[in-house]
Amino acid sequence: MELLQQKILNEGTVLSDHVLKVDAFLNHQIDPQLMVEVGKEFARRFENDHITKVLTLESSGIAPSMMAALDLGVPVIFARKRKSLTLVNDLLTASVYSFTKKETNEISVSQKFLEPTDNVLIIDDFLANGQAALGLASIVELAGAKTAGIGIVIEKSFQNGGKLLRDNGFKVESLARIQSLEGGKVTFLEEVGVGR
Amino acid sequence: MELLQQKILNEGTVLSDHVLKVDAFLNHQIDPQLMVEVGKEFARRFENDHITKVLTLESSGIAPSMMAALDLGVPVIFARKRKSLTLVNDLLTASVYSFTKKETNEISVSQKFLEPTDNVLIIDDFLANGQAALGLASIVELAGAKTAGIGIVIEKSFQNGGKLLRDNGFKVESLARIQSLEGGKVTFLEEVGVGR
Repeated sequence: MELLQQKILNEGTVLSDHVLKVDAFLNHQIDPQLMVEVGKEFARRFENDHITKVLTLESSGIAPSMMAALDLGVPVIFARKRKSLTLVNDLLTASVYSFTKKETNEISVSQKFLEPTDNVLIIDDFLANGQAALGLASIVELAGAKTAGIGIVIEKSFQNGGKLLRDNGFKVESLARIQSLEGGKVTFLEEVGVGR
Repeated sequence: MELLQQKILNEGTVLSDHVLKVDAFLNHQIDPQLMVEVGKEFARRFENDHITKVLTLESSGIAPSMMAALDLGVPVIFARKRKSLTLVNDLLTASVYSFTKKETNEISVSQKFLEPTDNVLIIDDFLANGQAALGLASIVELAGAKTAGIGIVIEKSFQNGGKLLRDNGFKVESLARIQSLEGGKVTFLEEVGVGR
């Protein structure tokens, strides 16, 4: 996605060979107009997959997910990273290890919002090691529903998450795929085929 | 806001005299089309306030804030509830006590996204005791910027937050104002004047 790549080049900051900071437009400050375009692109890539729900993880996944869900005409659910006092019963849960934060979070979704007939699009802001997406997919499975695909805003293709998810048979669509952050420079994976 | 009141009546659940659960459309599952209308209404109520940024708190504030920011044509920033490894320097912080979760969170915003010239609209999903909004307003003040107003999706008017914020001179616009949850029934405060 050209607009997103430009935004990453112009406003992203490479902090190390593994860390790209995009807090200027995606995960702290958010550019709403960019999110509109991101949502449209997700909707386009999954338009034939009969999506009934979008599932994401708080907090950075919410903005792109909502815009995709708006375009697809379905609700969005965000998994919570721990229990709150007003959301305790009938939870579907998974454990997710975050390499960035070096901690394990329990993520959970209220059972009543996922049904066996649901065809779920999982969306997240970043794909690195794939742990968050796998956790969300396991929640979908616990509900007896189907993961129809996984939409990622920025994939760090030099980490193993993308391969892991694709090897597990998931349709993964990443709007920007980063091949390398070496030397403080963002290099994108060459786009292959239409819609990649 | 009629549409929101209907949604609360149809899909909200009164858990006690103080707790209204709206996880079906606002803070767990989200209705994107409702958020479009909520955003439009916020933009309408603050259209003459020269807003330059929308500021909210993760996670439930993100969806309504993004739609308001989209309509106002400005960026949105969500304050984080604790530090992450990729966001450590130059933070503006405040302590916020949550009566729901019975815990104090440090909330923070990266200094670079708020400037003294900013005219900030604070948005949150709920207003109960007003602690989150006051914390966000104190962050705006730390940046030397101005809080132009506070937009709330659902105000629990039987708690003291609304009075506290208005007594402090803030322009507060709540899209639904709940007078009482007694007897398991949602009673709205009578709407007074146009746009209230």
